[in-house]
Amino acid sequence: MPIRVLHIGLGPIGAAVACQVATRSGFKAVGAIDIGAAKLGRDLGEVVGLERTLRVRVSDDLRAVVKATRPDVAVLCTSSSLKTVWPQIEAVLKLKLPIVSTTEELAYPWWNQKALSRKIDAAARKAGVAVVGTGVNPGFTMDALPITLTGVCQDVTSITVNRVQDARSRRLPFQKKIGCGLTTKQFQSRVDAGTVRHVGLTESIAMIAGAMGWKLDKVTDEVKPVVSDEGISSPLLSVAPGLVCGLVQDGKGYVRGKRVITLHMEAYLGAPESYDSVHIEGTPTLAMTIAGGVHGDVATASIAVNSIPKVIDAAPGLHTMRTLPIPSWFGGRVR
Amino acid sequence: MPIRVLHIGLGPIGAAVACQVATRSGFKAVGAIDIGAAKLGRDLGEVVGLERTLRVRVSDDLRAVVKATRPDVAVLCTSSSLKTVWPQIEAVLKLKLPIVSTTEELAYPWWNQKALSRKIDAAARKAGVAVVGTGVNPGFTMDALPITLTGVCQDVTSITVNRVQDARSRRLPFQKKIGCGLTTKQFQSRVDAGTVRHVGLTESIAMIAGAMGWKLDKVTDEVKPVVSDEGISSPLLSVAPGLVCGLVQDGKGYVRGKRVITLHMEAYLGAPESYDSVHIEGTPTLAMTIAGGVHGDVATASIAVNSIPKVIDAAPGLHTMRTLPIPSWFGGRVR
Repeated sequence: MPIRVLHIGLGPIGAAVACQVATRSGFKAVGAIDIGAAKLGRDLGEVVGLERTLRVRVSDDLRAVVKATRPDVAVLCTSSSLKTVWPQIEAVLKLKLPIVSTTEELAYPWWNQKALSRKIDAAARKAGVAVVGTGVNPGFTMDALPITLTGVCQDVTSITVNRVQDARSRRLPFQKKIGCGLTTKQFQSRVDAGTVRHVGLTESIAMIAGAMGWKLDKVTDEVKPVVSDEGISSPLLSVAPGLVCGLVQDGKGYVRGKRVITLHMEAYLGAPESYDSVHIEGTPTLAMTIAGGVHGDVATASIAVNSIPKVIDAAPGLHTMRTLPIPSWFGGRVR
Repeated sequence: MPIRVLHIGLGPIGAAVACQVATRSGFKAVGAIDIGAAKLGRDLGEVVGLERTLRVRVSDDLRAVVKATRPDVAVLCTSSSLKTVWPQIEAVLKLKLPIVSTTEELAYPWWNQKALSRKIDAAARKAGVAVVGTGVNPGFTMDALPITLTGVCQDVTSITVNRVQDARSRRLPFQKKIGCGLTTKQFQSRVDAGTVRHVGLTESIAMIAGAMGWKLDKVTDEVKPVVSDEGISSPLLSVAPGLVCGLVQDGKGYVRGKRVITLHMEAYLGAPESYDSVHIEGTPTLAMTIAGGVHGDVATASIAVNSIPKVIDAAPGLHTMRTLPIPSWFGGRVR
């Protein structure tokens, strides 16, 4: 029996999730919710760019769709902001559905939004289902993966993670989110407004610290522009000389004044080498590198889909990637 | 309140586990079982090489020790062989204690020893506690870690893991286990007898296949000697020219005639470069390397200790590393 999936939110990530659910074994899309007028009433397969219909019509009526289709789980991909997503989570939990969400701020909300975390946890327990926020980052490369690596350590004194990406291969919203094409002044005002930045460094730092048992007394998250001196193009946009082509962002976590967690991100058009690396200082010291890095868009959709069976089986409440069994690809097909 | 730990088996790995439990925050050694005459009646701290006593006397009476000390968990490090360990597991489960064990064949016994796996699972459920086999390998580098990496994949077509170790830095029993100092003829007869080999490749292959949903129709596990032409020494032993200085072992898993899992180990004195690497062929393809590799002895003891809280919290039954939440270092101390 395939797992019956309800899709909520059909932007780029939600659409990528829906494509995987429609094409991978073990799943069946049974419902789709989006408020976009251009999507409402159309077939899900068509909306997400598949070459076939899925006999699922996009609706904006959550309750009616759940009653009619009896899904096993909801995958929620509507916003990075937990405050925005909370009413949606609440509505889904009232219908007693477990939730996998790619909302970045849900990946580990216990540091930045403790009161809301408690509310979600209580609502999930009351509904008797589990909720988790996941994605490639936050959710994997800069938190769950380094946490996993410490499993073979007798002692850990500090953790450093680097994620360097040539943004030319990423989708347009990502390229815009990192400030491509802005002046440095525009960049700064958008950073101040919170619209240009990677969302999740604080969440990743708090997740790592929670796993290690470290009580953080300070977390910083700083964004700086990368300016293209000569101009640079991606297949999707061009950046003129002197304009911003991406960002460098540093998150740092401190315990009693000592920096113990350092998360360093570079995402800009033309970064010379993409990679993810983790350095754990401890016993033993570990130095891990993923050459080429983990591609963000495919990976976020994948880990959301791969988390579905774990969330269905999990104890009720608000989970994070460090409280679930390892989500892994599954499917059984061998080509 | 620290977790109260009962140590069963005080060989090199059991002793390393006991040292960690005695020195890390969050744990307290309350009992120790070993049948060795040289250890019986002595203080655990002294037996495992700590510079202080632990006020725990080594005993051979499991039932009496459990009654007197009321441990929360048993850590069992007595043998690689599940058949040897099963009566010990049964005895511990009758006393309703959860178990973390470094028994290699327990890491994923569902392929090689299905009937015994069912017995252990049933006994654990009856006792209302969880049992898990773990270690660096099997248990991490060649199974849990590659499984974790597939979490960001939309599709996986094959998995290759390499573990290459210069054995000069490993303990003497390990160097002997890989055949150091034998003639090639002696090596082959010990391979045939099953005393010279790494135990766990089949278990790792089966764990990966289980996670991926792959139904294996063939698993192979082949050991070959590495001969030192010029002779080589470790701090612990010398290998004369022409004798064996370690081994190369290859495990392969097939689905419908196609090889989908390849685990390649090299462990010999003087291997030019130690590393662990994972290559996942899929969408996306991932290439991960841990430079220097994960040191086996420290890592096995660490992951056993780090798994303790996960096993205490887990649902009753026989678990594997892929059914528990990520074990990670914890302790909270910042130096």
